[in-house]
Amino acid sequence: MATIERHEKNDRLSRIVVHNGTVYLSGLTADDKEADTAGQTRQILRRADTLLGSVGADRSKLLFAQIWLKDAGDFDAMNKVWVDWLDGAEPPARATVGASFALPNIRVEIQFTAAI
Amino acid sequence: MATIERHEKNDRLSRIVVHNGTVYLSGLTADDKEADTAGQTRQILRRADTLLGSVGADRSKLLFAQIWLKDAGDFDAMNKVWVDWLDGAEPPARATVGASFALPNIRVEIQFTAAI
Amino acid sequence: MATIERHEKNDRLSRIVVHNGTVYLSGLTADDKEADTAGQTRQILRRADTLLGSVGADRSKLLFAQIWLKDAGDFDAMNKVWVDWLDGAEPPARATVGASFALPNIRVEIQFTAAI
Repeated sequence: MATIERHEKNDRLSRIVVHNGTVYLSGLTADDKEADTAGQTRQILRRADTLLGSVGADRSKLLFAQIWLKDAGDFDAMNKVWVDWLDGAEPPARATVGASFALPNIRVEIQFTAAI
Repeated sequence: MATIERHEKNDRLSRIVVHNGTVYLSGLTADDKEADTAGQTRQILRRADTLLGSVGADRSKLLFAQIWLKDAGDFDAMNKVWVDWLDGAEPPARATVGASFALPNIRVEIQFTAAI
Repeated sequence: MATIERHEKNDRLSRIVVHNGTVYLSGLTADDKEADTAGQTRQILRRADTLLGSVGADRSKLLFAQIWLKDAGDFDAMNKVWVDWLDGAEPPARATVGASFALPNIRVEIQFTAAI
C-alpha cells in the first residue's frame, strides 16, 4: 500500500496530497481578490509553482488542470496568462467551465493534479 | 496492467471504481433532499463512509474531494459538518464551487477520490 | 518515476495525458455546436472513443467521468445517449452538475479519466 503524504494542512483540507506518484493540489484562488481575472490567474499560478516545488514537482509535470471561471467570457484573459506561464512546457489535460464562488470577487479557481 | 474493480453498478455509473490503489466514488447527493445543507452534507458523508468501508478504505485515506454547492453562501454550513466528520483525520485536497443540479432541492454534491 | 506521455497538444492543453497507467483526457465538447444535447453528447462520446483508442484504452476502461450540462434539465437526454454508448460496458464512477461555458451553444462537456 502506497503511503499518503499531506502538506500545508488546516482543519478542512490539505493544500497538497501525494499518493502513488500523483500530487493533488487543492483548488487555488488568488490572495488579492481585487485583481482582475488576469491578475488573479497570475497569483494562482505563482502559488501553484510554490506548492508543486515544495514536493519536488513543477509545471512540466502537470497531468490535469480543472479551471473554473466566474464569467466564462474571461476565458481569453485567463488563457493568455496560462500560456505565458507554461512558457513552452508540455501542457496538462484541462477542462474549463463557468462556476460560482463563495466570495463575490473571486473570478477564477484552478485545481491541479501532477506527477512527482 | 492493473485490474479495474467496479462496485454498486447501475446502467449509467459505478458508485465505486478501484484501480491501481486509487478509489473513485461517484458524486454523492443526499437521499432525503428535503434536508437543509447541513443535513444533506451529513447524509452524503455517512454514505461515503459506507462506500469507502466496503472496499477497505475510510475517511483517513481521502486524497481529493470535489464539493459542489447550489448556493455558494452555504459554504460555512457545509464546512462545519465536514470538519466534524473529519474528526481530526488528515484532510484531503479539496475544491468547492457553486453549481446547479438536475433536481431543484439538491443543495450539495460531493465526489471523493481516495487511496486503498 | 513514471514517465508522462502527452498527445494531441496545443499551446494550452494536451488532449491526452498518460501517467502511471492512468489516462487523463481534456474536457470534450462537440464540434458541431448547433446540435442538441443528445447530438452534442453523441459527438463527444465518438471523439472519446478515438482519443482513448489512440493510446490503447477504450470505453470499457473508464474510471471516472465528469459531466457538465448547460441546462441540468438536459440530464435525461444526455443520459440516454450515454447508456446507449456504454452498450453494456461496465460504467465509470461519474458526477454530473450544471455549469456555464465559454461559447453560448455548448450544452454539454465531458471529461474522462481511464485506465490503460
